Amino acid sequence: MASITNSIDVKDNTHHHVHCNNNSVHSIITSNKLDISEYYNMVVDSSCGAISSFIGTTRDNFDGKEVVQLEYEAYIPMALEEMKKIGLSVMKKWPDIFKIVFAHRIGIVPVLEGSIAIYISSPHRKASLDAVQYSIDELKARVPIWKKEIYNDNESDNMWKKNPVQKRNDIIKE
Amino acid sequence: MASITNSIDVKDNTHHHVHCNNNSVHSIITSNKLDISEYYNMVVDSSCGAISSFIGTTRDNFDGKEVVQLEYEAYIPMALEEMKKIGLSVMKKWPDIFKIVFAHRIGIVPVLEGSIAIYISSPHRKASLDAVQYSIDELKARVPIWKKEIYNDNESDNMWKKNPVQKRNDIIKE
Repeated sequence: MASITNSIDVKDNTHHHVHCNNNSVHSIITSNKLDISEYYNMVVDSSCGAISSFIGTTRDNFDGKEVVQLEYEAYIPMALEEMKKIGLSVMKKWPDIFKIVFAHRIGIVPVLEGSIAIYISSPHRKASLDAVQYSIDELKARVPIWKKEIYNDNESDNMWKKNPVQKRNDIIKE
Repeated sequence: MASITNSIDVKDNTHHHVHCNNNSVHSIITSNKLDISEYYNMVVDSSCGAISSFIGTTRDNFDGKEVVQLEYEAYIPMALEEMKKIGLSVMKKWPDIFKIVFAHRIGIVPVLEGSIAIYISSPHRKASLDAVQYSIDELKARVPIWKKEIYNDNESDNMWKKNPVQKRNDIIKE
């Protein structure tokens, strides 16, 4: 039923715009700053009375240490595939959800700036509110995106962190 | 501990900006279009990794009838007082919440445009996500703001609707 289109728009080495669109689930991986007004406009609709959202931003501390910035790296094709799957499972759980945008920034994300954005619209508020909670938990658990904290103490132990259920090497080996 | 300041800035007959600020709860009633980028910027902070939000928009149908626009009317002093109380109860329930913005538009709100916005920031995501859900339920139940659906059929039964727990006349009589 839903047609799925994929397009990759790489403007230069630092720009990766990738869209996975099945009319209602829009997954974006970008090295640009997240544009919350754009995502809001992508989900707003005259049939909907509710837009719920979550933005994850870089905070200035982790584990008691001062963080200067985060850096994200993705295995893009699998990340988009996983984001699309999560979107489709949201649509199945809450059938009256109208539009979903999942956006993840990769590369350097300074303190205060967003790394992940979720925007979901629905006619009534309960569906989109619950779906945002479900989506952020699933995205964090399942999407192959790794992050590295950059501290201000020039420590040499800055490490890429895998997400809880997937190992980076397992994926890269595939 | 928290200092509470109130300011009323009425630019002309159609502008009502009212702020109730106790350093962390910012309540706004306005006849202007809601400005989601402004509210986002009001809650974002380097100590926080999460911003959750909800926007209620006018949808084009209610009870099977086509809605052209909604109109909201508020008893402003009591509405702001109630918004502030809800914000303070949120802070009490989720002590690590950093900043809260509650904004309600009054007057005509056309289809697609927002009538209510909630923005909440916290270091970790769970607090702000849960607080948004709690806040919208409380705001809808407790704040003395009434709405009227304007249909496209020139029906004469367009009625002001009270919210579930307060009667307009009771409040206006006070």
